[in-house]
Amino acid sequence: MTIADAITELSSVLGERLTTSKSDRDIHGRSETYFTPAPPDAVAYPETTDEVSQIVRICAAHDCPVIPWGTGTSLEGHSLAIRGGVTVDFSRMDKVLAINQEDMDVVIQPGLTRVALNDHLRATGLFFPIDPGANAALGGMAATRASGTTAVRYGTMADNVLALEVVLADGRIIRTGSRARKSSAGYDLTHLFVGSEGTLGLITELTLKLQGIPEATSAAICAFENIEAAVQTVIMTIQMGLPLARIEFVDTATAAAFNAYAEACMPEKAHLMVEFHGSDAGVQEQAERFGELVSEMGGSGFKWATRTEDRSALWKMRHDAYYAILASRKGATALVTDLCVPISKLAQAVEETRADIATSNIPGPILGHVGDGNFHAILLVDPGSKAELEEAKSLSDRMVNRALDLGGTVTGEHGVGMGKLDYMHREHGEAWGVMADLKRTMDPKNILNPGKVVRVN
Amino acid sequence: MTIADAITELSSVLGERLTTSKSDRDIHGRSETYFTPAPPDAVAYPETTDEVSQIVRICAAHDCPVIPWGTGTSLEGHSLAIRGGVTVDFSRMDKVLAINQEDMDVVIQPGLTRVALNDHLRATGLFFPIDPGANAALGGMAATRASGTTAVRYGTMADNVLALEVVLADGRIIRTGSRARKSSAGYDLTHLFVGSEGTLGLITELTLKLQGIPEATSAAICAFENIEAAVQTVIMTIQMGLPLARIEFVDTATAAAFNAYAEACMPEKAHLMVEFHGSDAGVQEQAERFGELVSEMGGSGFKWATRTEDRSALWKMRHDAYYAILASRKGATALVTDLCVPISKLAQAVEETRADIATSNIPGPILGHVGDGNFHAILLVDPGSKAELEEAKSLSDRMVNRALDLGGTVTGEHGVGMGKLDYMHREHGEAWGVMADLKRTMDPKNILNPGKVVRVN
Repeated sequence: MTIADAITELSSVLGERLTTSKSDRDIHGRSETYFTPAPPDAVAYPETTDEVSQIVRICAAHDCPVIPWGTGTSLEGHSLAIRGGVTVDFSRMDKVLAINQEDMDVVIQPGLTRVALNDHLRATGLFFPIDPGANAALGGMAATRASGTTAVRYGTMADNVLALEVVLADGRIIRTGSRARKSSAGYDLTHLFVGSEGTLGLITELTLKLQGIPEATSAAICAFENIEAAVQTVIMTIQMGLPLARIEFVDTATAAAFNAYAEACMPEKAHLMVEFHGSDAGVQEQAERFGELVSEMGGSGFKWATRTEDRSALWKMRHDAYYAILASRKGATALVTDLCVPISKLAQAVEETRADIATSNIPGPILGHVGDGNFHAILLVDPGSKAELEEAKSLSDRMVNRALDLGGTVTGEHGVGMGKLDYMHREHGEAWGVMADLKRTMDPKNILNPGKVVRVN
Repeated sequence: MTIADAITELSSVLGERLTTSKSDRDIHGRSETYFTPAPPDAVAYPETTDEVSQIVRICAAHDCPVIPWGTGTSLEGHSLAIRGGVTVDFSRMDKVLAINQEDMDVVIQPGLTRVALNDHLRATGLFFPIDPGANAALGGMAATRASGTTAVRYGTMADNVLALEVVLADGRIIRTGSRARKSSAGYDLTHLFVGSEGTLGLITELTLKLQGIPEATSAAICAFENIEAAVQTVIMTIQMGLPLARIEFVDTATAAAFNAYAEACMPEKAHLMVEFHGSDAGVQEQAERFGELVSEMGGSGFKWATRTEDRSALWKMRHDAYYAILASRKGATALVTDLCVPISKLAQAVEETRADIATSNIPGPILGHVGDGNFHAILLVDPGSKAELEEAKSLSDRMVNRALDLGGTVTGEHGVGMGKLDYMHREHGEAWGVMADLKRTMDPKNILNPGKVVRVN
């Protein structure tokens, strides 16, 4: 009953699709942020749900950890094999199984990425709106309850997954939900697995809601003299009920990083980037109302991007923000915060965060999906400096307390992984214990992505 | 360790707010549908969360069932005390605790009804949209994952509860969620309790999303020669992406019941009732497009209700449908079905259901929230006739199989209670066992609304 025994047995099932090569283990042992690499003992590449079930059965028999892997773009060390074991890489399970155009849903495998899905859908007039920036695998997006730039309009993964197929910790395969748009048939297992980060089961199939491609789309960018004016504009826009499809904030430091990385020519000021989706008349009406508000709030340099290529360039720049910011400090790694507060508290939360970072030695550009009250500070640290990491952690710690004091959450969209584990009791109190009870019930041997989300031993 | 011991102890805590009077027990032992009455041994009227916690602790110590009660308007026998015990009536916990106008949310106690909440909100320009017809308590609506006429636009209770306070089976009080609009901080306990029908915990506080009252509202009713034309109109409207706020179907028999009960003068045909919410220009555009579609589909008698009082009359008639239908057969009780299928299968599901009912001896008017693919047949049976109830059950059984074959669910919005228990394994297979595992973990003594949703002993 060792990990080695599990690997021997898995090899006989998967052949060359079970590898223990150093390069493969290393690739699956890294994360995008500051965590120390932790490679698994082996990487498995299943092609079917039955194979995933077999893998989990074998691992369960040998008490071997099982870590699901999509594209490895998570930010909180979610997929690090901190107790060794087998990483299940879903890249060979990346098929579109059914497009139900009339019902505006699609059935897919978990390794499919969001960009690949939208490429597939191109001819249908439909699209999948959730956009976390990275071209993540949809299984991973569901597992971390991802969202991103479009959540203000289309919600998060929690709002867009209709049904799942899941392999449980003992290898059983279950289905949750259905293609019906709503149901009251018992406990909501779909929502329980969405956001469970591979700790309760491995997602092997997803049914997702789709949206009609809007008749008209219009995007814009504008600059503000200070953070407060930008954030107040967001709050007023939301409260006016303008149906925004995206509203993104970037601060001065982020604008500077864009200029350096993407050869943008942005004034080094705070900016808002917005997008409207709707009918021709509707989008025009919304854009006008937003424009009026921006000028009332002292915004400037207002530019509309109505051509597809201009919009793509705008959002590509936004999507690359993390890499632009990383590049702004040579050799740096990042601790990424992910606060989300009620919209009425957003200006206070952002301003206090900015002031706090300003008194520290750590560069920390701020940007976010401010229509949801969600923003990130990207704290750039020298990976060799323990002191800097400590300072970043203590900044992050104060931010967390601030978010909780304001009625918010420590992670709006990145998830818990390892990075937010220490804050879970602070956010949930006794309810975190209930989560641990659920984990013990669903995974009594603690083999599914152990050490993430909850503490059970 | 008996129920009697629990009642004695509860009396000393609650005084007159614990009653064993026959009339009070009888009121809490009835349901709105065909189930045999099952009164509790006592009814408790707590005023605070701490009292609820004390009640549950005492009941847990004596293995005494605890059944939560809102307004008793559920349809599947959810609140029947089938194993005796204490019904916890939340009518004294009906306060609005905080209106956060800027954040468009509200914090309330579970006994508050949806109409009372909207009365409270009148001056704010905000409203709570979920509308199951009955003036149910919001705690009960959350517990049953209710929805109704507006779900096509605003979602169900699952989409509109931000956070909960819950008393667990051992009396502990936890909080789930926050006022932030999104979170990835661990397992989604809020969605686990929403729809759990009082079997995992007692909801003692809710934070709900609110909506801005639309600038313009317009409602209409129109008639169709047959079910198929009406349902095809619904499908085409949804697929055109017209943002409907409501789209309701009623069949010929329901129209006849309206005429008799509400002195309506409807042609005895199938009807659609719709409503649009938006800006003045938006609503007008949508109404025109819908009107064109209706005439293409052979609809007639198209009438717009733009005045508030006309709209209220229209929706009052719809809300009273259940009572109108009940009144159409003197002395009858009802078995209410609640199928929900993917919209592409709606016409087939409704038509096969109609044909099946037509060959039976049971009257069964059909109506539904067809924009979600959700519809009900109200099977009217003589409460004294076992044969009729059996026939209704076998009709319902065939409907369930039909819905599942078409990729749907056995209950779109009414919940499981006792009435849909026998279909749960058919819908969920192995996943129903997982639900039972969760129940055992959260309520090891099976004291919380035992005998509903899952089978654990």
